[in-house]
Amino acid sequence: MVQAVVAIDAMGGDEGPAVTVPALAETLILHPKARFLLFGRQEEIEECLGKYAHLRDAVEVVHCDVAVSMNDKPSVALRQGRKVSSMWQAIQAVKDGRAHACLSAGNTGALMAMSKIILRTHEGIERPAIAGIWPTLIGECVVLDVGANIGGTVAQYVQFAAMGAAYARTIFGLQNPRVGLLNIGVEEVKGTDAVRDAAELLERSPLNFIGFVEGDGIGRGDADVVVTDGFTGNIALKTGEGTARQMSTYMRQAFGSSLMSRIGYVFAAGALAALRQRMDPNTVNGGMFLGLNGIVVKSHGGVDCAGFGTATQVAIEVAEADISKIIASDIARMQKLLNEI
Amino acid sequence: MVQAVVAIDAMGGDEGPAVTVPALAETLILHPKARFLLFGRQEEIEECLGKYAHLRDAVEVVHCDVAVSMNDKPSVALRQGRKVSSMWQAIQAVKDGRAHACLSAGNTGALMAMSKIILRTHEGIERPAIAGIWPTLIGECVVLDVGANIGGTVAQYVQFAAMGAAYARTIFGLQNPRVGLLNIGVEEVKGTDAVRDAAELLERSPLNFIGFVEGDGIGRGDADVVVTDGFTGNIALKTGEGTARQMSTYMRQAFGSSLMSRIGYVFAAGALAALRQRMDPNTVNGGMFLGLNGIVVKSHGGVDCAGFGTATQVAIEVAEADISKIIASDIARMQKLLNEI
Repeated sequence: MVQAVVAIDAMGGDEGPAVTVPALAETLILHPKARFLLFGRQEEIEECLGKYAHLRDAVEVVHCDVAVSMNDKPSVALRQGRKVSSMWQAIQAVKDGRAHACLSAGNTGALMAMSKIILRTHEGIERPAIAGIWPTLIGECVVLDVGANIGGTVAQYVQFAAMGAAYARTIFGLQNPRVGLLNIGVEEVKGTDAVRDAAELLERSPLNFIGFVEGDGIGRGDADVVVTDGFTGNIALKTGEGTARQMSTYMRQAFGSSLMSRIGYVFAAGALAALRQRMDPNTVNGGMFLGLNGIVVKSHGGVDCAGFGTATQVAIEVAEADISKIIASDIARMQKLLNEI
Repeated sequence: MVQAVVAIDAMGGDEGPAVTVPALAETLILHPKARFLLFGRQEEIEECLGKYAHLRDAVEVVHCDVAVSMNDKPSVALRQGRKVSSMWQAIQAVKDGRAHACLSAGNTGALMAMSKIILRTHEGIERPAIAGIWPTLIGECVVLDVGANIGGTVAQYVQFAAMGAAYARTIFGLQNPRVGLLNIGVEEVKGTDAVRDAAELLERSPLNFIGFVEGDGIGRGDADVVVTDGFTGNIALKTGEGTARQMSTYMRQAFGSSLMSRIGYVFAAGALAALRQRMDPNTVNGGMFLGLNGIVVKSHGGVDCAGFGTATQVAIEVAEADISKIIASDIARMQKLLNEI
């Protein structure tokens, strides 16, 4: 196991260093050996660091003048942020071997575009995917792609399946994760041609392919890896998050609705706090870019410290497990099948 | 307002008459003037009817030997169920003017295929869509298509928008419902070409088009009508339902976790019952087939009596409002725009 060094785009996210720096202070308690390279405006970062003396020895700050805006098109971000931005330099640190993983809560499109230029895709992979972690009734599952690509070809679905399985093996410690394809019915006649053809290939692959999974099968834990294209995956992810938030709101309203229910709330407060945590999208944060020659983790832009802390832990854990090597060997195993397409 | 007659495929759904018949008994209390034509195996239906004396006067049973299986491909259902099945005959009753609406909890693909053959699509509509009703933090919204079509063209998105707006006007009583297009980002640069081109046309339409809506915007109530293709819409719908069920399970677990929380449960039981109802997908059931020359409502196959009752109410309400006429006039208004494509 390596002692993880994570390169952090400290300017990323809606709040920048005000969230990213305090999050590291928390993470360091759980991972005391982790080290962080912080890229961004030195003055702002130092101000936030001031409150956390114990972070000092774990952190190195690298000044960058430019921060990529959350709303820039990837093309604009590349033009203005190439080489000089905190995002670019954090990725470059992975390329140069100074860090084992890059973490950013910044603009997803810009982060993916820069990652592809700097790190390049794995041999045998057409396009990288973003893998999200989804809480289920029986644990967690990996869902990919949740937003890197629009549309999916047969080859991409198969590559996503191989990468997702490698990721699930690494983070969940599963020998042979169950891989499912997201579809609108479990019958073989349903879905797009590409999804059906991908299923046919995956049946013959070394992966533990269990067939189609429907939208409500994700949270039920029907599969350990759910494969889909970035458009559908992103909408499923955000719909799930939105529904979870909606349910939390309903719950708050229910407990404020009468004196009896407010008394009930007092007795059940401990259980409810635990419940709220399970329902909180922040506790599952950290989208992994799979298929690159190097580790890049994307945090939600709108997270708080707890959320960014979760993403930091994901970055540390995949860095320690050296996931890029695992994916490379899995893709090599699948190559014969991929050549058929 | 018409006195609604609903033609019911009594054999549809996982449980058949054991669910469909008791559901009508409940519905009749809320809509005492409604009348039902029940299509299916007479003996089975009569047995279920026996327990509900007050239903007798509101119901007419039409015997059909054949019931379409939940898992048949549409082509098989058409071959075996043409003319003779309970599903076919329920739709035919609408075509013949004996009923104002058809309701089935049966096989969705078969119901859509038969509906298209018997009722045909509206002039100006390429393909019918299935519209679902989605609970939001501020009320409800219409989402379409939730499963009739795979993929979407620019023309279809625009037609769905017009039909969805007409439906929202009818069932929510809104003058000018806010129409949004489901996409993976609210920026103009994101999404598929068809989605972006449809947005450009909708901007110039007489509809109250508010732009793109993300997955988490559906439940937040960002729009009254959310337009998408059947693949994405079905996955979003099932993901939302699955997440709601997952949250209910977490809640049950939380309240069973300690003596204190069980005591809290007793005090909060009333509020929790109300909450469970809001979280229950059965309380929002009844997918409307839009774009046909006649009303067809699809209930979930796996619903209980409460769920099928909700779908029955939807069928009665849209029959009373004569929604087909409203859609026809809205599509006529949009025709100039649709001719541009």
